[in-house]
Amino acid sequence: MQPDEQKIRELHSTWIDAVNAGDLARLLSLMTDDVVFINPGQPPFGRDIFAPHFSTAHQQFQIRCDSDLEEVVVVGEVAYTRSKDALSVTPRAGGPSTNLTGHRLTIYRKQPDGRWLLARDAHTLKV
Amino acid sequence: MQPDEQKIRELHSTWIDAVNAGDLARLLSLMTDDVVFINPGQPPFGRDIFAPHFSTAHQQFQIRCDSDLEEVVVVGEVAYTRSKDALSVTPRAGGPSTNLTGHRLTIYRKQPDGRWLLARDAHTLKV
Repeated sequence: MQPDEQKIRELHSTWIDAVNAGDLARLLSLMTDDVVFINPGQPPFGRDIFAPHFSTAHQQFQIRCDSDLEEVVVVGEVAYTRSKDALSVTPRAGGPSTNLTGHRLTIYRKQPDGRWLLARDAHTLKV
Repeated sequence: MQPDEQKIRELHSTWIDAVNAGDLARLLSLMTDDVVFINPGQPPFGRDIFAPHFSTAHQQFQIRCDSDLEEVVVVGEVAYTRSKDALSVTPRAGGPSTNLTGHRLTIYRKQPDGRWLLARDAHTLKV
């Protein structure tokens, strides 16, 4: 495996762990300044919207995300991945969990210092 | 504008025109052999599934797609775009149209002969 592919796989794994841990600071350190997220039913948004939405979601819900990487492609300074994701969202106040499933297409950019960061992400998760 | 960015913009426009014209042969000529489409509510699929689904859809429905490019990024041999899409689907047998809206993240690969082809595409269109 190429070293860059290994780095992308580690970044994907670190990202999912940070989502499940509610570690917003870690997530923000793993995305580009100009990151864009495309989620069903809302306009595309960047890190300024990601941060408060993520915090609010973790305050209200216990979140468990599982993500299986189905493809990693590295081409020079760009990489893209496909993953199959499952999300379980359980109200901290009690009540049944909601389960969403879908797929994700993610684009990463290599930085001048060699780090890879998440730059674009589109998913189709739904109940 | 870089020549490659211009080529991607033309490819996006040609793609949408071919969708609206029901021109399957043209669309197949604009995608890589290993293309993957990620659509809400179904597993990812390639050109072998795209072809019959597209033909059946056009036989049963009049399809009108509008797509506004919101971003074009070219990095070496890879490019990615974001677009805001609206789809109107009207049964040829009569009946009301269904309107879907959403966004699309698309990845293109430059071929050895200089052509660009659509390689990965994820959208969030819903009613």
